[in-house]
Amino acid sequence: MSSSPTFADVQAAARRLDGIAIRTPLLENARLNAKLGGRLFIKAECLQRTGSFKIRGAYNFLACMSEADRRKGVVGWSSGNHAQGLAEAARLMDIKATIVMPADAPALKVANTRASGAEVVLYDRVKESREEIGLGIAKKTGATVVPPYDHPWILIGQGTTGLELAEQAKALDVTLDAVAAPCSGGGLSTGVALGVKGISPSTIVHAGEPAGFDDMTRSLARGVKQRNEKLSGSICDALLAPEPGDVTFPLAQKVLGPGLVATDDEVLDAMEVAFREFKLVVEPGGAVALAAALAGKLPVKDRSVAVVCSGGNVDHATFARALARPVGP
Amino acid sequence: MSSSPTFADVQAAARRLDGIAIRTPLLENARLNAKLGGRLFIKAECLQRTGSFKIRGAYNFLACMSEADRRKGVVGWSSGNHAQGLAEAARLMDIKATIVMPADAPALKVANTRASGAEVVLYDRVKESREEIGLGIAKKTGATVVPPYDHPWILIGQGTTGLELAEQAKALDVTLDAVAAPCSGGGLSTGVALGVKGISPSTIVHAGEPAGFDDMTRSLARGVKQRNEKLSGSICDALLAPEPGDVTFPLAQKVLGPGLVATDDEVLDAMEVAFREFKLVVEPGGAVALAAALAGKLPVKDRSVAVVCSGGNVDHATFARALARPVGP
Repeated sequence: MSSSPTFADVQAAARRLDGIAIRTPLLENARLNAKLGGRLFIKAECLQRTGSFKIRGAYNFLACMSEADRRKGVVGWSSGNHAQGLAEAARLMDIKATIVMPADAPALKVANTRASGAEVVLYDRVKESREEIGLGIAKKTGATVVPPYDHPWILIGQGTTGLELAEQAKALDVTLDAVAAPCSGGGLSTGVALGVKGISPSTIVHAGEPAGFDDMTRSLARGVKQRNEKLSGSICDALLAPEPGDVTFPLAQKVLGPGLVATDDEVLDAMEVAFREFKLVVEPGGAVALAAALAGKLPVKDRSVAVVCSGGNVDHATFARALARPVGP
Repeated sequence: MSSSPTFADVQAAARRLDGIAIRTPLLENARLNAKLGGRLFIKAECLQRTGSFKIRGAYNFLACMSEADRRKGVVGWSSGNHAQGLAEAARLMDIKATIVMPADAPALKVANTRASGAEVVLYDRVKESREEIGLGIAKKTGATVVPPYDHPWILIGQGTTGLELAEQAKALDVTLDAVAAPCSGGGLSTGVALGVKGISPSTIVHAGEPAGFDDMTRSLARGVKQRNEKLSGSICDALLAPEPGDVTFPLAQKVLGPGLVATDDEVLDAMEVAFREFKLVVEPGGAVALAAALAGKLPVKDRSVAVVCSGGNVDHATFARALARPVGP
């Protein structure tokens, strides 16, 4: 693989993921389209194994490792979707996985990660560093660190989401004007751009981010990496990476259009629309691109636009908040 | 078409629905499978256009009508999914549709039906008969009545759900031991049985019903049509037909195994599992077959079983009730 990932790399990842990743559906809604005056498609990646797209990158990473490295296991850190995706990918490939998770992570996410057979090491968010713990395990056992986004093998795995999306749109004879995908560190959004543009070069691909955590949007606008001021405080718990990655940002500058930013309220409204019109359970971070489209920040009128709804791992109380939003006209 | 519908009729309906009905995904969940000790698949028909399988039968019916009849329009009565499915099918075929709906039907369902361009005629549930009103419109305008289930054209349209499901299982190299589908008048369950058995003759197909509204289950057991005592009072608002149909019952006797019955609490639990593990919004009536499987009434252990989740048109308050159910181990 070349140093900067290409469309051919995404195609190779798609072959590795064939029969492993679910080919999630590309859905639209006639009523919503009529209201928006265009066509809005959802790539329903919340229906993916483990409830998010993360298994694509994790599995592709493991499949790219040498057999010798695989025998020594893998280690990762995550409080959420990457933990579950990596644990399940490792189970499918019969590789030992150790996941470092915060002691205050939701019990269900810890249980889910353990249910995939991973060893979970809990740490204290305030007093300890998960990187230190993870790197310590790697050093001691020879396990390979599987990063959440900033690696070409991860990025091209996530990119298969975009490849599928573009193929599905093409099968419908639709030329997409724009695609938007949620963005934390940039693995999904840059991967999706590679996958989409390999099939449909004219399509503009946008990263969607939560207000206050728009590091990629600002970095693209300024041409140099920007950090978020805060590390927590958005309902989009999956999108809190502090800055774009060293692998993802240079690629983002080549393949992404301007970023899109949605507020927490717009995200909750989008979750309600996904519930009511699409019958999908979408988590806050997974709904941020949809939120941008519904809030008019990604125009749909007289256009064909697709958004990736990247995950559905939302707790009951947060989903109930979305259900309580006033229903629009 | 022969008087008793066949697998070939379902195949013909599938050709009519090609590009119209969404090929909804067949989903499974590794964690749930491990817990159940077998493989449980969900045919996610809640993701279908208009949020339920009903558009399959309605569209197939309209496609089977003569051009002359189509010009005179169609009329139907329904408070829910058939109204939306028929209205949207008529819109797609540019046919005038009149739908008779109760004046106290949820505002959203009336609005959705109107949004598809249908004329909605409201009636008083207590003082008026929707059949009389509908038949009156048909007589006056020459419109064709499109029944909700008791017609071969409807039944074979719904049966395409089963055909797809069986094809999808086969593509996974899975031989299904059993399939279960929600049952009100029997259009979906008998259609699904035709579709499934044409591909996988050894698969047993069951109708799933809500407790207290198990007319099909009792009718199959007694060998003669039985009526429900009550006409309302289940959370499964889509499954309240008073007795099996004249077309569906004789076929049900040939193609269905014993019926399955789930309580309202089991249905709410199933909706919670669909939310948490499958990221799907399933309405109560749509979840009754899943409920039977999760409650152990349709054994999954050491078997491969598929259930149809037939719709997702649930209001916010009812879904919030499902979210409030205690989460199982």
